[in-house]
Amino acid sequence: MKDYVFGIDVGGTTIKCGLFQADGTLLEKWEIPTRTENNGDQILPDVAKTVLKKIKEKGIAKEDVAGVGIDLPGPVNEKGEIAVAVNLNWGYKDIVAELGGALGGIPVKAANDANAAALGEMWGGGGRGTKNLIMVTLGTGVGGGIIVDGKIVAGAHGAGGEIGHACVDPTETAVCNCGNRGCLEQMASATGIVRLAKRYLATYQGKTMLNPERISAKSVYDALKAGDEAATAIVEEVSAYLGNALAMFACVVDPEVIVIGGGVSKAGEILVDGVKKYYRRDAFISCKETPIVLAELGNDAGIYGAAKLALG
Amino acid sequence: MKDYVFGIDVGGTTIKCGLFQADGTLLEKWEIPTRTENNGDQILPDVAKTVLKKIKEKGIAKEDVAGVGIDLPGPVNEKGEIAVAVNLNWGYKDIVAELGGALGGIPVKAANDANAAALGEMWGGGGRGTKNLIMVTLGTGVGGGIIVDGKIVAGAHGAGGEIGHACVDPTETAVCNCGNRGCLEQMASATGIVRLAKRYLATYQGKTMLNPERISAKSVYDALKAGDEAATAIVEEVSAYLGNALAMFACVVDPEVIVIGGGVSKAGEILVDGVKKYYRRDAFISCKETPIVLAELGNDAGIYGAAKLALG
Repeated sequence: MKDYVFGIDVGGTTIKCGLFQADGTLLEKWEIPTRTENNGDQILPDVAKTVLKKIKEKGIAKEDVAGVGIDLPGPVNEKGEIAVAVNLNWGYKDIVAELGGALGGIPVKAANDANAAALGEMWGGGGRGTKNLIMVTLGTGVGGGIIVDGKIVAGAHGAGGEIGHACVDPTETAVCNCGNRGCLEQMASATGIVRLAKRYLATYQGKTMLNPERISAKSVYDALKAGDEAATAIVEEVSAYLGNALAMFACVVDPEVIVIGGGVSKAGEILVDGVKKYYRRDAFISCKETPIVLAELGNDAGIYGAAKLALG
Repeated sequence: MKDYVFGIDVGGTTIKCGLFQADGTLLEKWEIPTRTENNGDQILPDVAKTVLKKIKEKGIAKEDVAGVGIDLPGPVNEKGEIAVAVNLNWGYKDIVAELGGALGGIPVKAANDANAAALGEMWGGGGRGTKNLIMVTLGTGVGGGIIVDGKIVAGAHGAGGEIGHACVDPTETAVCNCGNRGCLEQMASATGIVRLAKRYLATYQGKTMLNPERISAKSVYDALKAGDEAATAIVEEVSAYLGNALAMFACVVDPEVIVIGGGVSKAGEILVDGVKKYYRRDAFISCKETPIVLAELGNDAGIYGAAKLALG
């Protein structure tokens, strides 16, 4: 019986590991450091070691492990090859071959981390019970993942779900990290919200509890909750960009649910309410009532999604 | 041997039928009228009759028919149910059950017509050799279809690929047929181009060969080819909307190719060039070089796609 599955979420400083039952029950989670020195050549061997050690420790028969899923911070194609991972000091790697070899033949599947998080939220989070979803992750940047028929849309260049770089305002003059201008990430990430807030406050004449010198996405949403007029205007702008973009994306894949995660989403339902207002305005009639919900798994979304990936 | 497959494309006035070999060779095509009277209750029986007649006429054994694919002008879900088809005077119908019954057990698959056209272009048209594409159809309206891993993305409400109703300009005041404001269809369909042209010419002071009283999408592109200054400006506006929207959609599914079809696309490469300019400006770096090509199958895209659908 293929009762067990591992989900591994590789970040730039920590590798999160989860041992799951095939039904989605998380049995144990732990972390190991990400050793990025020497072009990160110990990262996959370290993953193999910790997995094999856990199998031994738990007395699990190797043939009872359905597989090991792993997600990585970079573009991963459907075959499990990564083109580059700047945060790991990696160039090209064939993850499935390298990790599979080190694991002595346990099946391996690999995906991009944001895509895995979307799959995780489908399996055990805000999108539970669905097979088609859009996830948007509002953190330092804006990430995303698209699930169609229960599977990650990896895309022709591993760029499926790269919705943070949808150009939502071609008139924007500031340049995004990606080199383009007007990306959703420049409007709705934690740093993007700060940018819009500073821009707004530079000409705002009224009273506000926001201090342009010490502003954060959290302080903007906190001020909104306190009824601050400037914060209200700033969040309207953020929500309009995000709600309109999600409505456009919904025309493409018509998801069952839209899940919003990432650090910014800790603002809670007030954030969702703002996005919904503009989503409902702009969405195609068939999609207007598509639920928009908060992610539920937080930092565990990656290990859930990686494990689900390995289950197929 | 399942050597044969039928592709049926149901429109409001004509039903196009194609008999294909399983390798994609079109053996014969023909048309029958669409009888929309009596709530269109003869449409599916007519389809069954013409297919069975063709099987008999050709001396094909029923067991050599892989299936019958059919596309329809309305939202069709993955199970092959249509919610409504205004042009056929239909409400809900279970296409697979009804047509399959009338065909005496030959397997039936059903899809939306725009989605089937996208699949057709993948099988035998501008997207040949790919498994992931975005098709946009610029006709009286703007339709679309999304193919991921060789399959139509039907969506949770049959609205997958409804990219004509992506809200590309929330500041637009005119109302789209769908009830929203600022849809891509209002900018890049044949009627949308005429609308933008009239709006532009209303304040244009220079010389132009365009006559606001007798304008068409074709006349705009013809004037562009002749170097007309107003037509150039109008097409820039259309191209900016379309190129930006396609770049946003590419962030969602990262296709191998983008195919542009429909009557407006008869303008040819000059239309593609305009779209490419803004697509390349706004697309995420990984997707900037994604080919944008003209559709090749014209009115046959539907029968090709329906046949491919039946092959699975």
